[in-house]
Amino acid sequence: MILLELKARDAGGRICKAIINGKELETPAFLPVINPRIDTIPVKELKELGVQALITNAYFLLKNHEDELKKGVHDFLGFDGVVMLDSGAFQLMRYGSVNVTNRKIIEFQKKIKPDIGVILDVPVAKPSREDFEHGVKETLKRAKEWKKLGKGSVNWAGPVHGGPYEDLLKKSAVQMSKLGFDMYCVGSLVPAMEEYDFKRMVDQVITAKKNLPSNVLVHAFGAGHPMVMPLLALLGIDLFDSASYAIFAKENRYITERGTIKLKDLREFPCNCPSCFNKKPEDLKEPGLARHNLYVILAEVRRIKQAIHTGRLWELVLERAMVHPALLEATKHVLENHYEYFLDKDPLTKRKAFFYAGEVSSYRPAIVRASQKFPGQVPSALRIVYPFGQFEGEQVFDFDDELYTELETLRLIGDYWFGKSAGKKLFPKKCWIKYTRTGRIHQVFLNEDLLGVLRTSDGYFALHRAGALRLKTKLKKVVVKKDAESFVLEGRNALARFVKKVGKGVLPGDSVLVTNSRGKFLGVGEALLNSEEMLEFNYGNAVKVREGFEKPV
Amino acid sequence: MILLELKARDAGGRICKAIINGKELETPAFLPVINPRIDTIPVKELKELGVQALITNAYFLLKNHEDELKKGVHDFLGFDGVVMLDSGAFQLMRYGSVNVTNRKIIEFQKKIKPDIGVILDVPVAKPSREDFEHGVKETLKRAKEWKKLGKGSVNWAGPVHGGPYEDLLKKSAVQMSKLGFDMYCVGSLVPAMEEYDFKRMVDQVITAKKNLPSNVLVHAFGAGHPMVMPLLALLGIDLFDSASYAIFAKENRYITERGTIKLKDLREFPCNCPSCFNKKPEDLKEPGLARHNLYVILAEVRRIKQAIHTGRLWELVLERAMVHPALLEATKHVLENHYEYFLDKDPLTKRKAFFYAGEVSSYRPAIVRASQKFPGQVPSALRIVYPFGQFEGEQVFDFDDELYTELETLRLIGDYWFGKSAGKKLFPKKCWIKYTRTGRIHQVFLNEDLLGVLRTSDGYFALHRAGALRLKTKLKKVVVKKDAESFVLEGRNALARFVKKVGKGVLPGDSVLVTNSRGKFLGVGEALLNSEEMLEFNYGNAVKVREGFEKPV
Repeated sequence: MILLELKARDAGGRICKAIINGKELETPAFLPVINPRIDTIPVKELKELGVQALITNAYFLLKNHEDELKKGVHDFLGFDGVVMLDSGAFQLMRYGSVNVTNRKIIEFQKKIKPDIGVILDVPVAKPSREDFEHGVKETLKRAKEWKKLGKGSVNWAGPVHGGPYEDLLKKSAVQMSKLGFDMYCVGSLVPAMEEYDFKRMVDQVITAKKNLPSNVLVHAFGAGHPMVMPLLALLGIDLFDSASYAIFAKENRYITERGTIKLKDLREFPCNCPSCFNKKPEDLKEPGLARHNLYVILAEVRRIKQAIHTGRLWELVLERAMVHPALLEATKHVLENHYEYFLDKDPLTKRKAFFYAGEVSSYRPAIVRASQKFPGQVPSALRIVYPFGQFEGEQVFDFDDELYTELETLRLIGDYWFGKSAGKKLFPKKCWIKYTRTGRIHQVFLNEDLLGVLRTSDGYFALHRAGALRLKTKLKKVVVKKDAESFVLEGRNALARFVKKVGKGVLPGDSVLVTNSRGKFLGVGEALLNSEEMLEFNYGNAVKVREGFEKPV
Repeated sequence: MILLELKARDAGGRICKAIINGKELETPAFLPVINPRIDTIPVKELKELGVQALITNAYFLLKNHEDELKKGVHDFLGFDGVVMLDSGAFQLMRYGSVNVTNRKIIEFQKKIKPDIGVILDVPVAKPSREDFEHGVKETLKRAKEWKKLGKGSVNWAGPVHGGPYEDLLKKSAVQMSKLGFDMYCVGSLVPAMEEYDFKRMVDQVITAKKNLPSNVLVHAFGAGHPMVMPLLALLGIDLFDSASYAIFAKENRYITERGTIKLKDLREFPCNCPSCFNKKPEDLKEPGLARHNLYVILAEVRRIKQAIHTGRLWELVLERAMVHPALLEATKHVLENHYEYFLDKDPLTKRKAFFYAGEVSSYRPAIVRASQKFPGQVPSALRIVYPFGQFEGEQVFDFDDELYTELETLRLIGDYWFGKSAGKKLFPKKCWIKYTRTGRIHQVFLNEDLLGVLRTSDGYFALHRAGALRLKTKLKKVVVKKDAESFVLEGRNALARFVKKVGKGVLPGDSVLVTNSRGKFLGVGEALLNSEEMLEFNYGNAVKVREGFEKPV
């Protein structure tokens, strides 16, 4: 079993802590493909570069090194991080026939004990529907065989195929999910990527993701060019792998996050990595080039993580979209045709500026949500709330010219965050305000009771006990198991594994009431997961409790 | 005197080889501001980083180190590269009063012999028109004083001011130019940059550039954030300087080409430089942070140079525009309101893909030029010529459905590159074609004579002798001095210093006839400079001669 905790999120992307055989792996992560004992970058050096996980080929190990593997694959590689095995199916599809059975590959992996193993899937090179139908069917048959053979001490990844055929891909994802793999891999992406058909790539990933559970790692087989990684991370891909850093190096191709350049076309190094630093292109040879390629990929992963941490992943993706027309087209396609995919994932509010980068930004979840609430003019009272108040760039919202009293302003803010007529319920006429030193609304009280705090960074109204209880019919509920009750009452966070039931449509960032099974309220807090995730995740926090109610109410 | 040779160009940007006191400096270049004997990065290390030029403050040297400077500033600094001095006026404006005279600063510089010196200009902090009027006037007065005092062995930079007042800035540039400085500096940019008013920044730079000669280095005082450098380079800024790499480091601010981040907000390093590589943000302290900041700046300069070399500077600028709304706004402003500035600078044709990145690209010179030629439909025969054939991204051109014969196609191509009715003149009915092995038009002959070659990369028709002579009334002429005549006849390039006269409106990339003073034709070639530049530059090539005519025709 792989334990997965969602630590931070933005758009459809996420930073997770995965515990795999007791080893911690932070995702998104890039797994370099290594070819043991041949590769230019020794495993020892990979560790020094911060590589926590790598991937190698089960079939090649079986054919060439079986007798050296008695002590297991970690010992053989000299790597104590996460070792994932690829079955070798993809390489074999391309470069030869597979003279090994699924059963053999599975039993072999159980013997050499990688952290993650893969069944012998059937990727498809030439995209005819018949081929894909066969690939999906055969892979499923092999997955059922795996189920019978048993897991051993290995975590197993279920390969999902179907390529451009949405129905096949969906069927593959749904059926594979039922078999209970420890994680999943989206396959058949490489042909789309090689053809720069990034639109097809994103369609495939979104279809797969939609039909896989939320609480498992999803790996994009063969994806590891830094140019596409931000977009894939935006869709929720957790793991990347690629051998391109080494293969491209053999072809004298220099990877950048802005595309690949032939070494001979490079006059200047746009890079400060240890391979390039203070050198001229003519001086760079293998293995230095492979190292450079890997450094660049690893830096892009860190850039993606930094963007998720700060709520700037959309911005990073839109920036990268400008490096290639096909990437721009795919990014527009994601926003225009798949914006719904993000509506239950992108956090409700962010405390950073919203950068409107022209038309392509119009479908960002924050704008779609705001436009759904206000198809026409936006009350000027809401100028302080996200995204209106955090908006940078060309203005797209039209504000009315009304003057609003403080009470009207508060009520509009209440409606905005908690639904129609919530404002009136939350803020009765006799509620009163404590101001900040600069004269802005800060806390709102009713009699002695704090209803909540108006957050300056995003105009969110952070409900406290009295406010939450006034909205008890409006707020969504998260029902926790008995074991969690006392924790929440004390104001500690509600863990995902204690969530028993949850109201529909909870978004990350939503205010929720945590209740016990008898419908008594235990506390109020901020949802870190959406409804589906709360039920599926069984590790980490589900609700960040703002205030525990001490006793059930 | 600073010798300047234009080596490569794109948009308004350029790569030049400058010879300054016998030292070679490739531009665009970033000059770190150093504060001798205090700074965190020793001069020795700067040299190791590839820094060829640096800048320091004449006033501070005078006040604190006068007696240590007997052997000159290079000896004092331990730096044998290009040393530029700033008068200190800017710092003094900000941090105190200037108790030194212009004359004293000039004489002092002549004594300590920097490669480039600056007079004591009068920058303006608070932008009232009166202040700027005074600043411009006073700076001009001091420049005249400098003129009287004499240059010594120093090259002198003329500071151009005027800030947001276009008329003042223009006056300043024009008047300073008349005094014959060795190079120029655009001042008063820092306030605009600090306010993120990049629109004002670009307006100021364009006004200055338009009113300065083309054959001199133009330095942007205090500009050195990698976020703005591509845009400034696009406008033709050659030299950047900034102390920000060190100052920001003291404030724990981490520079990236995508903006500045507070170190405490950084969870992951998006960088592989020696300071960041394999470290966590919490481990980075001065002087490591200053080093990182400098590495990033130097890499962005190399990225700009690489983009110019490959004709992708527009793409780099449009990509960087996505890092901040104010930068996007300024970039759009440059394209929409200043596109004319680029029309005589951006090469006529490029052999790389043209990436149409949406509306903002509509004003790129290639599109403006094409649209001026074809306000309506474009003949489909031209689908192979730049930019139509190199176009990537959403299509903006509307092609007709006509079928064209080969002769019609050739004639349309002739008209397109050489002006109306040139096609008919160039390609008489009885011309004949040699095809490539794949069946495309390659060479075109008339009888035995090669008219020219149709270049596959951009659909340009590279004229040879017979073709050029058929177009002798249509092609622009470059008249060279007697000394150059024999060189051109032999097919060697025409040097800029031998250009005597040139027809109006020559663009870089244009086909030109090189002639002698008696109007005889010496050869045909590709203009590397535009008309104005041909007359102003006195170093490097003006015309890359494709074919010399052996004898004057």
